[in-house]
Amino acid sequence: MSQSPVLTLLSDFGTRDAYVGMMKGAIAQINSTLTVIDLTHVIPPQAIAHARFILMSAFPYFPLGTVHVAVVDPGVGSDRRGIALAVGNDPTQPTGFLVGPDNGIFSGVLAQYPVLAGVELTHSAYWRTPQRSDTFHGRDVFAPVAAHLASGVPLTDLGTTIAPESLVHWALPPWIRSANTIQGCIQAIDHFGNLITNIPATEIVNQEWSVAVEHHRLPGVTTYSDRPPDSPIALIGSHGWVELAIVQGSAQAKLNLNLGDSVKIILQNRA
Amino acid sequence: MSQSPVLTLLSDFGTRDAYVGMMKGAIAQINSTLTVIDLTHVIPPQAIAHARFILMSAFPYFPLGTVHVAVVDPGVGSDRRGIALAVGNDPTQPTGFLVGPDNGIFSGVLAQYPVLAGVELTHSAYWRTPQRSDTFHGRDVFAPVAAHLASGVPLTDLGTTIAPESLVHWALPPWIRSANTIQGCIQAIDHFGNLITNIPATEIVNQEWSVAVEHHRLPGVTTYSDRPPDSPIALIGSHGWVELAIVQGSAQAKLNLNLGDSVKIILQNRA
Amino acid sequence: MSQSPVLTLLSDFGTRDAYVGMMKGAIAQINSTLTVIDLTHVIPPQAIAHARFILMSAFPYFPLGTVHVAVVDPGVGSDRRGIALAVGNDPTQPTGFLVGPDNGIFSGVLAQYPVLAGVELTHSAYWRTPQRSDTFHGRDVFAPVAAHLASGVPLTDLGTTIAPESLVHWALPPWIRSANTIQGCIQAIDHFGNLITNIPATEIVNQEWSVAVEHHRLPGVTTYSDRPPDSPIALIGSHGWVELAIVQGSAQAKLNLNLGDSVKIILQNRA
Repeated sequence: MSQSPVLTLLSDFGTRDAYVGMMKGAIAQINSTLTVIDLTHVIPPQAIAHARFILMSAFPYFPLGTVHVAVVDPGVGSDRRGIALAVGNDPTQPTGFLVGPDNGIFSGVLAQYPVLAGVELTHSAYWRTPQRSDTFHGRDVFAPVAAHLASGVPLTDLGTTIAPESLVHWALPPWIRSANTIQGCIQAIDHFGNLITNIPATEIVNQEWSVAVEHHRLPGVTTYSDRPPDSPIALIGSHGWVELAIVQGSAQAKLNLNLGDSVKIILQNRA
Repeated sequence: MSQSPVLTLLSDFGTRDAYVGMMKGAIAQINSTLTVIDLTHVIPPQAIAHARFILMSAFPYFPLGTVHVAVVDPGVGSDRRGIALAVGNDPTQPTGFLVGPDNGIFSGVLAQYPVLAGVELTHSAYWRTPQRSDTFHGRDVFAPVAAHLASGVPLTDLGTTIAPESLVHWALPPWIRSANTIQGCIQAIDHFGNLITNIPATEIVNQEWSVAVEHHRLPGVTTYSDRPPDSPIALIGSHGWVELAIVQGSAQAKLNLNLGDSVKIILQNRA
Repeated sequence: MSQSPVLTLLSDFGTRDAYVGMMKGAIAQINSTLTVIDLTHVIPPQAIAHARFILMSAFPYFPLGTVHVAVVDPGVGSDRRGIALAVGNDPTQPTGFLVGPDNGIFSGVLAQYPVLAGVELTHSAYWRTPQRSDTFHGRDVFAPVAAHLASGVPLTDLGTTIAPESLVHWALPPWIRSANTIQGCIQAIDHFGNLITNIPATEIVNQEWSVAVEHHRLPGVTTYSDRPPDSPIALIGSHGWVELAIVQGSAQAKLNLNLGDSVKIILQNRA
């Protein structure tokens, strides 16, 4: 079907200031025909781990070649690198491009897609003129670079090649499987209060299971409507991870759990 | 003037998660040249009545043929139907299309525009591949179907025809007119704290009137600037309904009223 | 690179109601191919001064000829004028256009760019048909007029010419420079809690400086990463003004300062 280049934006800039508008203006100054889509700008300030989850979750749902800009950047002005990466399995058609600071924000995507090519953003010809600010690389470096990339500038023109091994990595604690249990943790909480674990759905396919957390036992079900309102349940969420939820309620509020808290899945052998 | 197809999105997904971005990505994978407009994603979770008001209010202000996706869907995963409707008075040019769950969310629009055609969304060829999730039909069914519809796929290709009488209906309590009064209720509250009643402006055209509510009497005026700051007033709001407001203040806070509360209009005979 | 006309929106309508969606619909009814960008809709209700700062800050980052609609309009329905202005230094190519109420909201931009031409919006042929409401000029007057302007209608067709001197002006208290100090005030606070003064960066170029505020003394630094977390600092912010910040924290919360509070810069002679 019809396609024009797509660029997404993710930041902790919030929605009440002019920062996001400025980034979009800087993009439009280069190419106002791009399709620009906000992932979210309501990341808790400087919460790289949360941004990492959002980008990892949304990445597979965009057209091939989409350019994703992510700016949660507590180290702006330090010597942390600005980077652009092409990722995917097909060198002739990257699944997507990533543009932002080298601080681990892309770790989630990179756990699932290999790096095809990467550069440190050193070619200032693709930055905003006359010069970048020391405090707002989102507007002055990342947005312009991404607009050029989405408009057809080759990745390798944007800077000097870097090795994938040199990228800053932000690792989630791993989940651990034993005979009848999987031990994991909560890696994200959405605005409904659903608790998203780090245990992938693929681990429990075709099994009966439940979740033990604090003094609660949550049955593993297929969909929210399998139980009456206020029931605690566990299910495979739309993100592809095991989630804890309260039917028509907030699991975060009712179960009193937070990011990083432990979760245990109990697997039952089918009779 | 220049026109490209328009698609609107309305949900209770909030703005801090990746859900809205995922829906827009799923649309862009089908057609990234569509003009996609957010109505709002800050519907209180699962508040079908509020979403119904927002969509009814915004619907008349969009180009002919706009596709409106509305996803406030507490019944996702149950046997509630997914539907697509064409509405308007001209079968050759629908005023607009509605895509979402059959749970009453479209009742406001349908009180004002007849259904020209309707289908249950059964043709999975227009859903996201490889398969829909059980929990996120917004991304996996409604957004892709709407993108295809806005791109020219005929409504009747999307599923099996359904009868308008079979649609789930969410009814507002009716307003009641007597000789000198109209009894109604508050059907929505906006973020300024204006209280929007269910009494249409057409009922009080060319009359003098005031509103009695609790121990307050609010004069019917033409515009906010007719009275000094902090004055309680009633006027015909921009939605086309009688509204209660406080000049440069919040009527909700000052009058202490809520959704569903009773409101009485007093009509005065002109001398 | 590729360009299509750009239109920005700024308002105090919030994001939970249908108001912004209605404005975008009204624009799309005229021209759905325009690139429409939100600056923000989370201006505190009727806070003209805050909107003035946002628009002034974002204005330089948009393509030449961008149309900016700003609707913070406590006087809607009164006899305040609706206006459209062309601003910049080149009469053959305006830097941008401004559309909204004549209440001072454009004062920030106008302090930096001269008016090339201005009209009062009197030609109702460019408003929404059948008639404007008395309460929502954003949807019924300003958005349609801006869509026509961005689509190529000449400014002078939109109404009757007005003199720049007649525009309502909202003035910031001036900053005052003495031999070794600059006395100013806080003109804006962003969502990180950074305090943005009204003292332009150009006043302290190539000097050593610090800021005295209440009992705090904040060193003038180049970038956030020059000091450890929780340090109070002053720096030249991305807006081009002297800003007060806390490294990885909120200056508003920690320094307990608010809009309009006094700030003093101490300049040091270099040895």
